[in-house]
Amino acid sequence: MASLSHPLKPRFLSTPKPKLQTNKCPTKVRMSFQESGPSIAVVGVTGAVGQEFLSVLSDRDFPYRSLKLLASKRSAGKSISFQDRTLTVQELTADSFDDVDIALFSAGGSISKQFGPIAADKGAVVVDNSSAFRMVDGVPLVIPEVNPEAMAGIKIGNKKGALIANPNCSTIICLMAATPLHRHAKVTRMVVSTYQAASGAGAAAMHELELQTREVLEGKPPTCNIFKQQYAFNLFSHNAPVLENGYNEEEMKMVKETRKIWNDMNVKVTATCIRVPVMRAHAESVNLQFEKPLDEDTAREILKTAPGVVVIDDRTSNRFPAPLEVSNKDEVAVGRIRQDVSQEGNHGLDMFVCGDQVRKGATLNAVQIAELLL
Amino acid sequence: MASLSHPLKPRFLSTPKPKLQTNKCPTKVRMSFQESGPSIAVVGVTGAVGQEFLSVLSDRDFPYRSLKLLASKRSAGKSISFQDRTLTVQELTADSFDDVDIALFSAGGSISKQFGPIAADKGAVVVDNSSAFRMVDGVPLVIPEVNPEAMAGIKIGNKKGALIANPNCSTIICLMAATPLHRHAKVTRMVVSTYQAASGAGAAAMHELELQTREVLEGKPPTCNIFKQQYAFNLFSHNAPVLENGYNEEEMKMVKETRKIWNDMNVKVTATCIRVPVMRAHAESVNLQFEKPLDEDTAREILKTAPGVVVIDDRTSNRFPAPLEVSNKDEVAVGRIRQDVSQEGNHGLDMFVCGDQVRKGATLNAVQIAELLL
Repeated sequence: MASLSHPLKPRFLSTPKPKLQTNKCPTKVRMSFQESGPSIAVVGVTGAVGQEFLSVLSDRDFPYRSLKLLASKRSAGKSISFQDRTLTVQELTADSFDDVDIALFSAGGSISKQFGPIAADKGAVVVDNSSAFRMVDGVPLVIPEVNPEAMAGIKIGNKKGALIANPNCSTIICLMAATPLHRHAKVTRMVVSTYQAASGAGAAAMHELELQTREVLEGKPPTCNIFKQQYAFNLFSHNAPVLENGYNEEEMKMVKETRKIWNDMNVKVTATCIRVPVMRAHAESVNLQFEKPLDEDTAREILKTAPGVVVIDDRTSNRFPAPLEVSNKDEVAVGRIRQDVSQEGNHGLDMFVCGDQVRKGATLNAVQIAELLL
Repeated sequence: MASLSHPLKPRFLSTPKPKLQTNKCPTKVRMSFQESGPSIAVVGVTGAVGQEFLSVLSDRDFPYRSLKLLASKRSAGKSISFQDRTLTVQELTADSFDDVDIALFSAGGSISKQFGPIAADKGAVVVDNSSAFRMVDGVPLVIPEVNPEAMAGIKIGNKKGALIANPNCSTIICLMAATPLHRHAKVTRMVVSTYQAASGAGAAAMHELELQTREVLEGKPPTCNIFKQQYAFNLFSHNAPVLENGYNEEEMKMVKETRKIWNDMNVKVTATCIRVPVMRAHAESVNLQFEKPLDEDTAREILKTAPGVVVIDDRTSNRFPAPLEVSNKDEVAVGRIRQDVSQEGNHGLDMFVCGDQVRKGATLNAVQIAELLL
């Protein structure tokens, strides 16, 4: 049995299973192995996100008649336990997608670019976690609670499959909270500053943060393999390449993906993306400008009934969303909801949002997309 | 000799002495013990900031003819080494300020409220690091690089002393970078999200962050004395009390102090203040709106010549300001300077600012104020 150890098991590095009271995500389906279920493939199954895909599929009793685990040649032959069976990892090839209904891709952009269209040609609906197709015209970019209508007409079992893109983690987490308010009062401008966890850079980055922290506490020089600088007890601008306009790619994803998901080319977004020494949940400080007035009490009530969102906004005890509290949880938490004192006439709000980067920021959202296909 | 150990000595928790190439702070004075120098008192000398006061006075060869170390009754009698002498801590009383020219206060707001006016009545110029007098009419709130004119007319050696307030750390660090741009293009609105270090909550908070981190890595429950929740590998809304408008006190300090320091009651500011697991330097994501157009190249050139500011803005190698790089340093670092894509016609900029909370955020700024008196 291959070791596919998860760096996040220690109790206080991240918290276990969801316990927040919340509105359930709307598309949950209670099933598991079923003759009538779809055949599923998970591409990139040995990575951190691939492993979490299996965990989410199992947690949500996702129905399937077959489950194919795909990875690079190097990982082929490894065994993975799933529910009460042991499955063998197969090498990803052009022939992997015969008789696959839904293919969950998380093996990086270049693998998606190469094999996504092949899978779709063979009739699979590809839910791709990379950025490869997000901004491609005709490829729906979907958060199930936000814009399920974007994937209207896409079905499994067609001869011709389809590509659906999973948005970037920071975009998903921000829009889970911003969209219900946008629907009510129309967001015209959004200023976002992120506090992003190690998990966004993969399991190796999480391991490095832990290793470095141990080293620093022992007075040793920190091992810097994944990032060029010390991460323990530090923070830095997101490691994505910086573009000609001075924004990094992570930031421009938030700008562009928001426009596509909201189908609103006029919404103004700016973002500053920062990596902080936290394991697996992102936080975001979000300043909103609205076309119509929206007071904070109405906003709070809207968010309390928003699917997949939980409000943590206790001013008396100073209890608000924090990454550790949402780690390993499905819901996006929102708090610090307040009328922006820098804007006139109830046209602005500030809020603070936290969500698990690996779950709602990636795998859960993709699995929810797959659930919409059932 | 009392143990006044400093929690920040380990090499990789924070970095040693300044090595950044920079414009020197403008008021530096190269002197030390001098018959003609002022007599100095440091109030709250046994605290983390009090200790850093001594370090900054020594580093800057601040001239003095006598140095009085004051603290609570409990600390009276302790010995402290300063330069090549051993000084004894004296109990702070109403009689402590006879023949004191400059009193540097950092013993909390209630001590400042009680003893600050007494010291001023006896002829001392009080430079107070607490929030006690910051918003009091007639008390200058000063960042020497920003508004030295606010303390015009205040001199040492007068029969009647004066109170001068040191701004809040987050305000100082933000305005060091924002003011040179404000002078050029007039800031009309500023949206700030902070990434604040443990040091702002005192030495005990820094110790707790280190202790908790060790505990978490050993799989033990974290000790939560200073903060109500786990700080290691986590972040949370600033611990300051939340006011009726939903902002916490730390955030409203940024809003109000900016107006007073810029002497501009119309400038709009909103802030979200977050505590991150970093030891002693704050970071801030700052979005600016200007009355007049200001392009990013001009902004960068302005900041390159701004006193006490260093520009770290290397897009190619993704090198930007980070807390660890400015820890124990005098300069505020600024980078990620870019035209805001969410604003029209060069009327907006984003930037990321880092500064040592204990130094420029507190002690250095106060000592620079004292230097203006010489």
